[in-house]
Amino acid sequence: MNKTVSKSDALNAILNSLSATSGDIEATAVVSTDGLMMASNFPAGMDEDRISAMAAALLAMGERTARELNRGNLDQVFVKGANGFLILMGAGPNGVLVALCTKAAKLGLIFLDMNRAAAELTRIL
Amino acid sequence: MNKTVSKSDALNAILNSLSATSGDIEATAVVSTDGLMMASNFPAGMDEDRISAMAAALLAMGERTARELNRGNLDQVFVKGANGFLILMGAGPNGVLVALCTKAAKLGLIFLDMNRAAAELTRIL
Repeated sequence: MNKTVSKSDALNAILNSLSATSGDIEATAVVSTDGLMMASNFPAGMDEDRISAMAAALLAMGERTARELNRGNLDQVFVKGANGFLILMGAGPNGVLVALCTKAAKLGLIFLDMNRAAAELTRIL
Repeated sequence: MNKTVSKSDALNAILNSLSATSGDIEATAVVSTDGLMMASNFPAGMDEDRISAMAAALLAMGERTARELNRGNLDQVFVKGANGFLILMGAGPNGVLVALCTKAAKLGLIFLDMNRAAAELTRIL
């Protein structure tokens, strides 16, 4: 039981730290590759289930695309809308790091911080 | 009939010009939003049907994600694999510009060139 709690705390600490790096990151989460929430740092009013389900579906589609078009193992998926970005990044074989950003986000910085967070998550998961 | 040919030529000219901007762009295409090929510039051996089908499926998923997560209208989808990238960019209400790039591609430059090509395609389609 203690082990589970401490893993959850560790995941939350990584997400909190990632969210704190930039005001343009609106929400962060770690979901399992089958679309279940592992940890999240969302503002009130965001629907966790919706985000994890969309992330898993997009990830599956991205994986299939990368494989079919010989791009190799999936590393990142990035969706840009008029109001902002959704970024998915693999975190080990079982986890996916998700970030929702505003349209003002500086992507180079966000990718750098997400890569670091994904590497930390990979060690924990 | 003539009009169709000249539109097709114009689409091909834009794709050729885009492919010529960087040796890291392996293939370019314009597909309709329902996944049918409109024009393409592929090396021999690449499967056009597979690319257009994957592009349309990924686009639909990206659109749904952007809408559900309040990111606004879909602008770009980007999939990074270990061996390279797939980039989709809206080109008007009916077209999608697709580019397959190697992993060495400089994304800032490729996005710039793709944005210009997408603006030209929007005028034609």
